[in-house]
Amino acid sequence: MNNLPFRAFLTSNMDLEKAEIKKLLETCGQQEFAKGQVLLSPGQKCQHTFYVGKGLLRQYSLDNKGKEHVLQFAPEEWFMTDRESSYFGQESIYYIEALEDSLIFLIEEQHIIQLMDNFPGFAEFNNKLLHNHIRHLQQRINSLLSDPAEQRYLKFISTYPDLLVRVPQWMIASYLGITPEGLSRVRREMASRYDH
Amino acid sequence: MNNLPFRAFLTSNMDLEKAEIKKLLETCGQQEFAKGQVLLSPGQKCQHTFYVGKGLLRQYSLDNKGKEHVLQFAPEEWFMTDRESSYFGQESIYYIEALEDSLIFLIEEQHIIQLMDNFPGFAEFNNKLLHNHIRHLQQRINSLLSDPAEQRYLKFISTYPDLLVRVPQWMIASYLGITPEGLSRVRREMASRYDH
Repeated sequence: MNNLPFRAFLTSNMDLEKAEIKKLLETCGQQEFAKGQVLLSPGQKCQHTFYVGKGLLRQYSLDNKGKEHVLQFAPEEWFMTDRESSYFGQESIYYIEALEDSLIFLIEEQHIIQLMDNFPGFAEFNNKLLHNHIRHLQQRINSLLSDPAEQRYLKFISTYPDLLVRVPQWMIASYLGITPEGLSRVRREMASRYDH
Repeated sequence: MNNLPFRAFLTSNMDLEKAEIKKLLETCGQQEFAKGQVLLSPGQKCQHTFYVGKGLLRQYSLDNKGKEHVLQFAPEEWFMTDRESSYFGQESIYYIEALEDSLIFLIEEQHIIQLMDNFPGFAEFNNKLLHNHIRHLQQRINSLLSDPAEQRYLKFISTYPDLLVRVPQWMIASYLGITPEGLSRVRREMASRYDH
């Protein structure tokens, strides 16, 4: 099994002992998903935390007019899951989809709980992930409430520096909560400022 | 010390042992805040998780045009903190303010870590709180991206059933990410539907 990218992440980012890393890698499966393949659909219970070794995932919802709303992107070294569903055992209201051919590590909720019980270092690791997720979501809400479109776009670029060329414009607009026309306008205005 | 409301919450909501509850109550201070008093300001490091025994808190940011944006309300039995600041040791970008005379329990981040190390039940309790927070934030983002104003207002009423009469309309509008005029229109339209 090639689990190098995940191992590299774990050893470089966290204070985990070798035994903990070995245990985590043993317990999680890995799977390749083709571009367009769906990892989670509304009505399903989310069973895993997905870690992106290679490729790109997107989490989105579909409103009753059939319009998609992008909650999050997850490129390499990001985690993605619907914690609402996986932790509380509820049916998900989201899709998670591969936007590119992707290599995904699948971590089961049950294993996370076992690892937390057995390895204090892993409990800290998980706690840090949760806080990081909260930080990210809180900043996003504040940005949606208070930032003009250009500011939101700049924050998107800073959060996901390489996604501008990997994701279609309409998906970025959806993530920003603006129309594709709104995003085109922002980009034109920014470009014109650098024209002089 | 009167810590009945917090004790009542802990015993009714969580699988905590009596010893754990006693320890938690011993370690956390309580303080009364008058209406309008500020518990956290931008530039400060958030030192506590606040638990509302009585009263009402609000978390908001101020943009560079002087406009306020409401992130969250916390009535009785809610927790409020800036985890971005308290966990990662960063300066906060938010205000936390008492909207009514309030009795607040103050839980220090350091104590939470100690309690998690010493009491497995508390680690679970904290883990559940974090997941609940994530659920709440995720639903909020999805609602801001995809719900029309009326839907957002209905979700606000369902989340905070008694705040309609405790919070000024403009603050509710700010929480919903719409203008006060937009909120008036929604309320008029809803009222007219029940007029027939």
